[in-house]
Amino acid sequence: MEELLDQIKKANDIKKMAPKDYNALARQIRCFLVRHISHTGGHLSSNLGVVELTMALHLCCDFPNDRIIWDVGHQCYTHKILTGRKDGFENLRRFGGMSGFPKRAESDCDVLDTGHSSTSIGAALGLAKARDIQKESRKIVAVIGDGALSGGMAYEALNNAARLKSNMIIVLNDNQMSISRNVGGMSNYLGKIRTNTNYTGLKEDVEKILQRMPFIGNSLTGHIRSVKDLVKRIFIPGMLFEDMGITYIGPIDGHDIGQMVTAFRSASKLQKAVLVHVITQKGKGYLPAMKDPSAFHGVAPFRVKDGVERNAGSSPLTYTDVFSRAIVEQAKQNPLLTAISAAMPSGTGLSEFAKRYPDRFFDVGIAEEHAVTFAAGMAAGGLRPVVAVYSTFLQRAYDQIIHDVCINRLPVIFAVDRAGLVGSDGETHQGIFDMAFLLQMPGMTVMAPKNTWEMEAMLSFSMEYRDGPVALRYPRGEAYRGLTEYTAPIEWGKSEWIYKESQIVLLAVGSMVETALEVREQLKAKGFAVSVVNVRFVKPFDREMLADIPKQHSVVVTMEEGVAEGGFGQQIAAWYQKEKAVFVYSAALPNQFIEHGSVALLKEKYRLDAKGIVARLETLLTGESKLQGGGIR
Amino acid sequence: MEELLDQIKKANDIKKMAPKDYNALARQIRCFLVRHISHTGGHLSSNLGVVELTMALHLCCDFPNDRIIWDVGHQCYTHKILTGRKDGFENLRRFGGMSGFPKRAESDCDVLDTGHSSTSIGAALGLAKARDIQKESRKIVAVIGDGALSGGMAYEALNNAARLKSNMIIVLNDNQMSISRNVGGMSNYLGKIRTNTNYTGLKEDVEKILQRMPFIGNSLTGHIRSVKDLVKRIFIPGMLFEDMGITYIGPIDGHDIGQMVTAFRSASKLQKAVLVHVITQKGKGYLPAMKDPSAFHGVAPFRVKDGVERNAGSSPLTYTDVFSRAIVEQAKQNPLLTAISAAMPSGTGLSEFAKRYPDRFFDVGIAEEHAVTFAAGMAAGGLRPVVAVYSTFLQRAYDQIIHDVCINRLPVIFAVDRAGLVGSDGETHQGIFDMAFLLQMPGMTVMAPKNTWEMEAMLSFSMEYRDGPVALRYPRGEAYRGLTEYTAPIEWGKSEWIYKESQIVLLAVGSMVETALEVREQLKAKGFAVSVVNVRFVKPFDREMLADIPKQHSVVVTMEEGVAEGGFGQQIAAWYQKEKAVFVYSAALPNQFIEHGSVALLKEKYRLDAKGIVARLETLLTGESKLQGGGIR
Repeated sequence: MEELLDQIKKANDIKKMAPKDYNALARQIRCFLVRHISHTGGHLSSNLGVVELTMALHLCCDFPNDRIIWDVGHQCYTHKILTGRKDGFENLRRFGGMSGFPKRAESDCDVLDTGHSSTSIGAALGLAKARDIQKESRKIVAVIGDGALSGGMAYEALNNAARLKSNMIIVLNDNQMSISRNVGGMSNYLGKIRTNTNYTGLKEDVEKILQRMPFIGNSLTGHIRSVKDLVKRIFIPGMLFEDMGITYIGPIDGHDIGQMVTAFRSASKLQKAVLVHVITQKGKGYLPAMKDPSAFHGVAPFRVKDGVERNAGSSPLTYTDVFSRAIVEQAKQNPLLTAISAAMPSGTGLSEFAKRYPDRFFDVGIAEEHAVTFAAGMAAGGLRPVVAVYSTFLQRAYDQIIHDVCINRLPVIFAVDRAGLVGSDGETHQGIFDMAFLLQMPGMTVMAPKNTWEMEAMLSFSMEYRDGPVALRYPRGEAYRGLTEYTAPIEWGKSEWIYKESQIVLLAVGSMVETALEVREQLKAKGFAVSVVNVRFVKPFDREMLADIPKQHSVVVTMEEGVAEGGFGQQIAAWYQKEKAVFVYSAALPNQFIEHGSVALLKEKYRLDAKGIVARLETLLTGESKLQGGGIR
Repeated sequence: MEELLDQIKKANDIKKMAPKDYNALARQIRCFLVRHISHTGGHLSSNLGVVELTMALHLCCDFPNDRIIWDVGHQCYTHKILTGRKDGFENLRRFGGMSGFPKRAESDCDVLDTGHSSTSIGAALGLAKARDIQKESRKIVAVIGDGALSGGMAYEALNNAARLKSNMIIVLNDNQMSISRNVGGMSNYLGKIRTNTNYTGLKEDVEKILQRMPFIGNSLTGHIRSVKDLVKRIFIPGMLFEDMGITYIGPIDGHDIGQMVTAFRSASKLQKAVLVHVITQKGKGYLPAMKDPSAFHGVAPFRVKDGVERNAGSSPLTYTDVFSRAIVEQAKQNPLLTAISAAMPSGTGLSEFAKRYPDRFFDVGIAEEHAVTFAAGMAAGGLRPVVAVYSTFLQRAYDQIIHDVCINRLPVIFAVDRAGLVGSDGETHQGIFDMAFLLQMPGMTVMAPKNTWEMEAMLSFSMEYRDGPVALRYPRGEAYRGLTEYTAPIEWGKSEWIYKESQIVLLAVGSMVETALEVREQLKAKGFAVSVVNVRFVKPFDREMLADIPKQHSVVVTMEEGVAEGGFGQQIAAWYQKEKAVFVYSAALPNQFIEHGSVALLKEKYRLDAKGIVARLETLLTGESKLQGGGIR
């Protein structure tokens, strides 16, 4: 049934195939992808879109000598198949199984581990320079989506690639989308190239352009203006790239292998950076994904026949859901509230807000830096902007948060979603650094809710707080719905006692409060007295509460879903240096990148689950040191 | 002598002036600027370039209602003069005196504190949205240099500004430079607009373009190609911006106030984002600065008659000088070594390297994100790239260091210059976060040299070390030349004992080793025994040395020129939680932004000088706690 696909055992095997079989192979790859992803989950639409594109690149390249960088990387499935990793799809994205992204450890045909957007052109330019300086001979290719092209660093790289005097191919994989529909001037421009090649409607466009064109009586420019009007009548595909010094070829049909092979071969002969503009369709070949490519961007296991999620109906309430509802409520009351997303309106829970308040919703494309500085401008102008963004992508805006928001002490609200372990996407996507980097920033407030009620209460509090920026961090997945009786009002910098006993106190951040309850149960079963504090404010932390603790406790356990270095636990441990009567143990993630796998498995491996924390504490408490009688020494 | 200038007492006063006096006022402003900056130091070339531009904007705008964002901000001096802050120039950039950058605290005509590049368009777009949503009426202007336009976030903002349905003016202040000469495709493009408006040489250009243009036999594009050839013959100024959806006006002579006023008025009538391209000359009106604008970018006090630095000849050897020499030496031995700068070849000490090894030197423009990912690509390709960058600007690449360098464990070397307090540039430029953010990053090595010898030794060590990235941090200003007898070989993760006594141990990072010697002298004079450790490796820190310390010492003092939160001291304090026999005091900067002033004054204020540290220790040791007899409790 997939006999052509079965002939692909390793890199370059595709070249042995007869050209007449290419389309059949593409079909078999699509069937294979749909079948496997329907079981394991994974990125579907993007991978279905680049089957022929990947095949064409493999027909033109010689792996592993040639180098290809997949921007973001989630569209590398066909590349994995064509480099002998077909069997890996059995355990795609599972703990210990094959990654859903390029991985150097998996294959020498993967040149860089990637996961974030817009890096491919810069990395490829570095590889091209490495080739030239070492006088090697190899093709260097960057494959970048039109969505990723909205990220500024892609432009920085294009700007530099213009000076390259040797060959490098930039494949612009134009599917008119990032995860959701694309936005902005560049996207419009590409849209014009796609639709205007046969002059349809061009005359009307030109007239509109002419009408809005200003006239400047300027001797420097006057005589140009006259020809400008004329020239506007003629549409030039890709002139924008040519103006920047990048040779443009296109647009090319991204599902026509022959056309692409011709284009890539032509492109590889030029001693400069060449952009090949390829038009593809996200979800190509699988009807449900073609109809709604966004919904099939990253999918859970689904039924092949209709695309319906296998576990549909049972989807639990997430913090994103709570945020989604709460921000709409806030917007009703506050006409100054605006919401900003970087190409993730659905993922961050802003779809409903966008529908109800289109004038106050801003999808800026994959452009986190701009998102933050744009929000700073809004706040300086009197609005109450909320930037909703995944923890891992907020890393992109580290400097903008410091420079544009914190230095100006502007009341921007950061809704930091996917904060903590995210699971199957692995190293590049875990949200484990946000606490550490936000804690450094002067004037920043950092909160984490213990449950659904607190999520709403904290968003509401953030809207009231005007003395600087606030970050509200919450994890991926199901929101905790317990502890409903604990509803002390949110007060800036104040924590909440859940249980107040003695001996051991658990200071738990956000998602770890639920775990703390489990830890407490288990420790109590072993005869310990255990208090639990819901930290609420990671920054500033509650110094009054900390000062109170040594009166009753000798062991402080901090619990957080984030990297230990620079995190909450270290702040607390450092603070207690003054206080010799307590011992601090920090349960946090080690200073390493965390691989893919289910969150539960990862928490078990890194001892962030109740079992692991209790085991560690037992060793500490009964090993070199003693708990009973106050203080471990 | 400056009677026109004296009539400007507050914002909008310029509007009372007769147009015939504009040029005389411009001259008086230039004299005023040269005279004052020659005494205080400051940014000269950029300010001399925008005198007329600023006047034209003030003639068209109504302050403080209208809003203007100065990108970077160091060109705001005329704006300060025209908004009634002329007297502030007496104490420009001095501690307690007027800032060299826009400051909201100084005037309601400054809408945002700025200092980093490429933020103005995004912030202005936020202000425009705030205006529209609140149905206010005001002009919004961003003034951005062509240098800052190489930063990706400027492009992200342009991409979004294309959708604006109300007015916003982007003034492109094109002086063909960032701090040094500009680079890249965009710069070339602007160059063509400037020089080709009268068609000179255009024909030859077109023929060259035609020759290198690939031919693709492609039905989608075929019939366009024919007209494309034709169209290339005609040059359209600013078409690149128009293609992106931004209306382009220009080029305009940026020293012709009348022309600019006309252009700004036209631009402000359009209900969309308009880019007004203004050509200015850096250093305009002051001959030495016109001849060498880079040298007069940021200046120390100088003699007006010839521009010679007042204290010239006595300039001390800096770490940048040592780096400059050392990297050239390294490059001689290692043909794989490359060096990358983000528009700062001179500031980071790479000018000599660039001259000697032009093929291995890369100035990527103001584009730190690209600089880092480009380096990652180079390292993946087998080169040994060194990214030389100021600490404060490295903040821009936080995500790229994690994602492209650390996750891939690539041996990129970061030469982190201006790490620590930088002085007169103030809040936006202090290099106080690098340790805190680099310490979080898995696999990163962070070093700091105690003196000139160690600077060279550490660079040499970095070149040998291949197991991941290395950051070498060193401060602005004079390099320490003492302790020449301490030359233990650099060993990964190992510190160096300078004095091994008992009681108190000072763990000093880099520049603080010199201070530690002073602290030791003073404490010894008071009867304490004091050891000194040159930390060398901030990450990973020397656990063996730490474990050794409690045998002889009861007080550990960490000393670092960086923010306390997440910094070296907190790591050490957290580590010693296990060890109750020692008390840790961390001398570091508080979690706040540090204003401008001389480094010496700032160190005094924040108690990072020997006197301050000794005073703090005395309080700690003799106050609530006691030193003598081991351990403060």
